[in-house]
Amino acid sequence: MPKISSKGAAMPASPIRKLVPYSDNAKKRGVHVFHLNIGQPDIETPEGARKAVQNYNSKVIEYSHSAGMISYRQKLVEYYKSVGIHITTDEIIVTNGGSEAIMFAFNACLDQDDEVIVPEPFYANYNGFATSSGVKIKPIFSTIENGFALPPIEEFEKLITPKTKAIMICNPNNPTGYLYSKEELEQLREIVIKHDLFLFADEVYREFCYDGAKHFSVMELEGLEEHVVLFDSVSKRYSACGVRIGALISRNKELMNTAMKFAQARLSPPTYGQVLGEAACDTPQSYFDMVIDDYVARRNCVVEAINKMPGCFCPNPKGAFYAVARLPIDNADRFCQWLLEEFNYEGKTVMLAPATGFYSVPTKGVDEVRISYCLKVDDLKKAMKCLEEGLKVYPGRK
Amino acid sequence: MPKISSKGAAMPASPIRKLVPYSDNAKKRGVHVFHLNIGQPDIETPEGARKAVQNYNSKVIEYSHSAGMISYRQKLVEYYKSVGIHITTDEIIVTNGGSEAIMFAFNACLDQDDEVIVPEPFYANYNGFATSSGVKIKPIFSTIENGFALPPIEEFEKLITPKTKAIMICNPNNPTGYLYSKEELEQLREIVIKHDLFLFADEVYREFCYDGAKHFSVMELEGLEEHVVLFDSVSKRYSACGVRIGALISRNKELMNTAMKFAQARLSPPTYGQVLGEAACDTPQSYFDMVIDDYVARRNCVVEAINKMPGCFCPNPKGAFYAVARLPIDNADRFCQWLLEEFNYEGKTVMLAPATGFYSVPTKGVDEVRISYCLKVDDLKKAMKCLEEGLKVYPGRK
Repeated sequence: MPKISSKGAAMPASPIRKLVPYSDNAKKRGVHVFHLNIGQPDIETPEGARKAVQNYNSKVIEYSHSAGMISYRQKLVEYYKSVGIHITTDEIIVTNGGSEAIMFAFNACLDQDDEVIVPEPFYANYNGFATSSGVKIKPIFSTIENGFALPPIEEFEKLITPKTKAIMICNPNNPTGYLYSKEELEQLREIVIKHDLFLFADEVYREFCYDGAKHFSVMELEGLEEHVVLFDSVSKRYSACGVRIGALISRNKELMNTAMKFAQARLSPPTYGQVLGEAACDTPQSYFDMVIDDYVARRNCVVEAINKMPGCFCPNPKGAFYAVARLPIDNADRFCQWLLEEFNYEGKTVMLAPATGFYSVPTKGVDEVRISYCLKVDDLKKAMKCLEEGLKVYPGRK
Repeated sequence: MPKISSKGAAMPASPIRKLVPYSDNAKKRGVHVFHLNIGQPDIETPEGARKAVQNYNSKVIEYSHSAGMISYRQKLVEYYKSVGIHITTDEIIVTNGGSEAIMFAFNACLDQDDEVIVPEPFYANYNGFATSSGVKIKPIFSTIENGFALPPIEEFEKLITPKTKAIMICNPNNPTGYLYSKEELEQLREIVIKHDLFLFADEVYREFCYDGAKHFSVMELEGLEEHVVLFDSVSKRYSACGVRIGALISRNKELMNTAMKFAQARLSPPTYGQVLGEAACDTPQSYFDMVIDDYVARRNCVVEAINKMPGCFCPNPKGAFYAVARLPIDNADRFCQWLLEEFNYEGKTVMLAPATGFYSVPTKGVDEVRISYCLKVDDLKKAMKCLEEGLKVYPGRK
């Protein structure tokens, strides 16, 4: 029997999905499970965008341009202009979700064993993309006490080696919800120029900033035209995760020409998703106002509830729809599994993502969980009640 | 300015697309271009499949299961049964086109610098996937004189090293149209077992077999349950290239568990494409009968026309919708560019793919072109007339 590769063996399983068999079992036992483990919003995809797909009546569903349909890229140029990012259609490659944009950038910028510095905790699938392309992630630790702010620049300097090719951030952050300030990004700017690095930024939660905070994009940093690579996606912006439409954006021509070769190899991004994405560019501001009001209420519900629970702490995130909370528990993996396997409160329980999956070493995040507040406030209240009651009786409580 | 990676620099540009600027210029000069360079059929996507997307009215376009929607995989099980391939839903991962299935298999089965043996000429994008994942393609030469039949097994043996992990075929073949016989596949079976290799098979043109020939799948080879990995796609089967829906199929559980980790990292394949793919499984046989009649007429038109042209030779392919022809020319790249830049016959010209892009060394295929017979017979006749007249006056004629 032929053997799988070492790369395949080293590929990490998704920490968000590894508890799925336990939640399936809970459901089989008749227990209702509140899913706070995944970033699948229950918000409706804008109607106009969905209608565009229903009305699409091409008789041949053809390949599009490898960089995406020109009509869609033209609409994207307008969309980005509306959020203060000035680019041209040539500076956009439409991708199979944000995931593929990250893969293209890793492949175009980093060779086997090259290094990218990423503040941790970080989006767990970055590990998977790194393993796929043979790249090494060098984590830099951010702390819950500081609300997961950018680590001091001196800490970045300590990690830089001849193999370091890029720094990668997610802003607003998944899993912490932290929103990087303009000042923090300008500190990154200095180090990126000093060491001639790429600056990768995953800004898929750009629209979701709260309490009057404004998102500042790395694309707005002056003098970084050749350095900055933006990863984007329509999944969260329009609650359209299933269309698998993202984008790789950069003003660096050599990089874009190189990324295009990877894009051509896989022929084109999905046509229907682009049709939806193009129409979604016309989504009125009222949609986002409503969604943001929803998310603020949801965040407040979760963060206030957790901070009232004895021994618990949850920083108040300014963006995205995630929060990382510290709980008085021995082990987050055991606790999250126990919630699904051995606990219920009035026939209900809650599924959380152990934060361990978002750190690079198993000793970190052991008393932390990521909470995705993608559900309605009523459901979140019930889920928080389950968490509160669960913590009272969990055998591994500290 | 930060540098792109050596991997990015080594990534091959698509040989099918590099002439696009010249065809764009020809069109600007008012010359009509017959596109025989790409495998984008003009056949209609089945109406029932398109209607399923138009009728899809979920209000939230959600992620699907990372392996694809279970309802779609159930329909695929039925589809495969109808073509003699007996598998379960767990033996299918739905992918972003056939391209992603190949990437998953390369990553799950081969490490950096491991080798896969591929009969050449071969689908040019295999080179891109190999570069992406750090894999080396070892080509084994098939010849136009033999109609591009499988090279002798002794030739395979000569290429096998400790780094060899797989043999990969495309059946029916792109670019040659060659259909491997059951006997040829049984020869491959012996060598795969003897050297404990994976056998990768790209069978996306399965439906397109002519002159009464029947497709025999590697999935039907006995004793290869742990070895065989099938790449599939709905792009060609239903003329739905833009939906980006493929599949990775294997009975090897360890391989599938490993591939699932790569599938989870990119979350899910596109939802709309799966909706179309699911409905397309109900496409009546009459659709394929019509399409196959069309393709046979198109193939006959092209092959007969070329074999009548002085100094030209084109084997008669039994499958897919490509043919490779030998022409009396000095250099296929120059000739194809010349057809677009300097030639027209009554305001028309033809765009072909130089076969050089389908070989691994630049000295091979220099007098060969790939012809994709995806157009209506009337257009193909005009295109063949352009080719005939072009060959008469081409300055580099041999």
